[in-house]
Amino acid sequence: MRSVSVSPRLRSVPSSPIRKLVPFAVAAKKEGVHVYHLNIGDPDIKTPQVMLDVLKNWDKNPIGYDQSQGNPEFLEALIWYYHRLGFTFVSPKHIQVTNGGSEAISMALFAVCEPGDEVLTFEPLYTNYNSYAVVNGVTLKGILTSSDTGFHLPDRSVVEAAVTPKTKAILICNPNNPTGTVYTEEEVRMLVDIAKDHGLFLLSDEVYREYTYDGRKHVSLLKFMSEIPDRAIVLDSMSKRYSLCGVRLGALVTLNDDVLKGILAIAQGRLSSGLVDQAIAAKLTQVPDSYLAEVYDEYVSRRDVLYEGLKNIPGVVIPKPEGAFYTIVGLPVADSERFCQWLLTDFRDNNETLMIAPAAGFYATPGMGKNEVRIAYVLNVTAIRRCVELLAKALEAYKKTETRG
Amino acid sequence: MRSVSVSPRLRSVPSSPIRKLVPFAVAAKKEGVHVYHLNIGDPDIKTPQVMLDVLKNWDKNPIGYDQSQGNPEFLEALIWYYHRLGFTFVSPKHIQVTNGGSEAISMALFAVCEPGDEVLTFEPLYTNYNSYAVVNGVTLKGILTSSDTGFHLPDRSVVEAAVTPKTKAILICNPNNPTGTVYTEEEVRMLVDIAKDHGLFLLSDEVYREYTYDGRKHVSLLKFMSEIPDRAIVLDSMSKRYSLCGVRLGALVTLNDDVLKGILAIAQGRLSSGLVDQAIAAKLTQVPDSYLAEVYDEYVSRRDVLYEGLKNIPGVVIPKPEGAFYTIVGLPVADSERFCQWLLTDFRDNNETLMIAPAAGFYATPGMGKNEVRIAYVLNVTAIRRCVELLAKALEAYKKTETRG
Repeated sequence: MRSVSVSPRLRSVPSSPIRKLVPFAVAAKKEGVHVYHLNIGDPDIKTPQVMLDVLKNWDKNPIGYDQSQGNPEFLEALIWYYHRLGFTFVSPKHIQVTNGGSEAISMALFAVCEPGDEVLTFEPLYTNYNSYAVVNGVTLKGILTSSDTGFHLPDRSVVEAAVTPKTKAILICNPNNPTGTVYTEEEVRMLVDIAKDHGLFLLSDEVYREYTYDGRKHVSLLKFMSEIPDRAIVLDSMSKRYSLCGVRLGALVTLNDDVLKGILAIAQGRLSSGLVDQAIAAKLTQVPDSYLAEVYDEYVSRRDVLYEGLKNIPGVVIPKPEGAFYTIVGLPVADSERFCQWLLTDFRDNNETLMIAPAAGFYATPGMGKNEVRIAYVLNVTAIRRCVELLAKALEAYKKTETRG
Repeated sequence: MRSVSVSPRLRSVPSSPIRKLVPFAVAAKKEGVHVYHLNIGDPDIKTPQVMLDVLKNWDKNPIGYDQSQGNPEFLEALIWYYHRLGFTFVSPKHIQVTNGGSEAISMALFAVCEPGDEVLTFEPLYTNYNSYAVVNGVTLKGILTSSDTGFHLPDRSVVEAAVTPKTKAILICNPNNPTGTVYTEEEVRMLVDIAKDHGLFLLSDEVYREYTYDGRKHVSLLKFMSEIPDRAIVLDSMSKRYSLCGVRLGALVTLNDDVLKGILAIAQGRLSSGLVDQAIAAKLTQVPDSYLAEVYDEYVSRRDVLYEGLKNIPGVVIPKPEGAFYTIVGLPVADSERFCQWLLTDFRDNNETLMIAPAAGFYATPGMGKNEVRIAYVLNVTAIRRCVELLAKALEAYKKTETRG
């Protein structure tokens, strides 16, 4: 019998740094330990009631396919949303509904790159970009940003120096997961100019658009879309705005007809997004403003408690998060993956521990982020306060372990 | 400003032959014309009540992410299902839950092929295989089957002659969409032997497993899985078994750990399948046997009405469908795509028409299927009877049009 083996590319899909420690968390829970999850952006914020009511009132039978581009009512709801943001040029034909923001990003990479082409992005980066890059045969080139500058973009010359003949696009996440950085108008303008001058697509992942703090305004790529209609692609998701992570819906928005036509063909191949999920999300037009305001205020409180707590722990480096609900935190440890695993396997305080994500997987450049973690402030203020306490105690205890070891 | 253009691979994703005539159907409906949809496998069969009840009784808030491998209860339900079929060796670790059968097929192609590698399949084929092939950089090599033999497989020597050093897998759909063919034990055995002798993976898409008619038994690849544990991959979907097309859930089943590990990493990148959809599908253990029996009987009746009706239309060639709910039908027209479009734009009988899918898109070989269509018998017997009548009248009218033209 002649042997078979999986494709080399399959072996190179990275395991999620957010999820690969999950078995250790499961084991801890089996022991009866309470684990605080700050490892994943899966908020405890309630889903709007008007969306949950869709389930109670469901009357479609059978649950059949929907249209490949997206459910017409959901598309109309998205138009309502983008118009309300002031981008009245957006019409249903500019939108492809996707299975989460994930599929939007993956489709965009496929659309602008042949295998072996390069996409520039900024490190630390949303870890799953690494997966989508491998799945689409794309090389992600990370340009380093640092906590010293609040992870803001480097000078234009630094970005331009990274452009090669294989570079097809720049991909940003704004507000940024995992750094919490909100890019200024000048930064977005700089990327638009580089995209123009170097013939690049500009992909803007704006899943956390609403979460900008301390008076900062979000500068959407939609603002520049009519200036660069052929090369601007906005990637969006319902998950974080309405606490709908388990409703797998996102959107890709562009004025580029070739992109839209091609990704519709991909979407036809996978038939449609979920009928029930789209019916839920279509109710976004009826979510009260008070819901969004409360959620916003809640994240500000969480951010404040986390930031104020962590900055006083010796050896911890945390720039004040400007948006989203993540932050990259420097820790006084040599190997943050080992530390994060140790939190789950060894550290207990009053039978509690916490789960956070080692940051190495949030870089495309090997060797980076070894002493950093990503923290998602997705739990309530009381829990966050306890997590700060747990982290302080854990670092103290770990220092002794490392010394002993 | 330097120009940009989409990737050549994006331009080569084929539009779905099932869906590309949709705009003409939409236009006809706007005129008030009733369109019978036999173009797509989106049945009118009711979803089991026990599954719909999940929506009415929903109490999870927020709707958060699920586990990347799949919801634990849904995985257990799948195990129950496979054990009930007699395949008691299947355990949760052998299963990856996917977003529809679509994602299962796409992941499998990625897992076994590098870009440029070849997968053998049999034509006519499920049209979306062409999309998944392009998206994954895989070359689909179609081996022709013909209505003369009920679209059964050719001799072993014909299949082996198509194997090249780039061939990595054989992909079958059994029972077959679009031909309705149910492969015999000898045919499946032949493919297992070829996979052994030539070092190939064997991928079996068994979405229509339950629908085999006239006393035929389905021969699952699961039956051979322990014989070729490293190379057998079964692809499955909930859509047709429980009339859940809009619940985007499928599964990939294999004993190959490398495949499972790699596709779990891909799955982690896209986070999880839908939480609500998985809760619905997890109720499959409570679907009464009477539901499945009624659905089965209903498809047999539809098949009989369609087959008996069509075989008496002059110039129409239809082998008796053995399973699934599709059939490839030869029509006395030169260009079936033109005919299918004409049905939507020009043909009316009592203000009704029908939509069927031109078969050319169900071949990987250009130029094939020009005088064939795929018909999905997904409507009730009365509607099918009317569709047969419409098709007979339409062919008569079209002949005159063509003569005039």
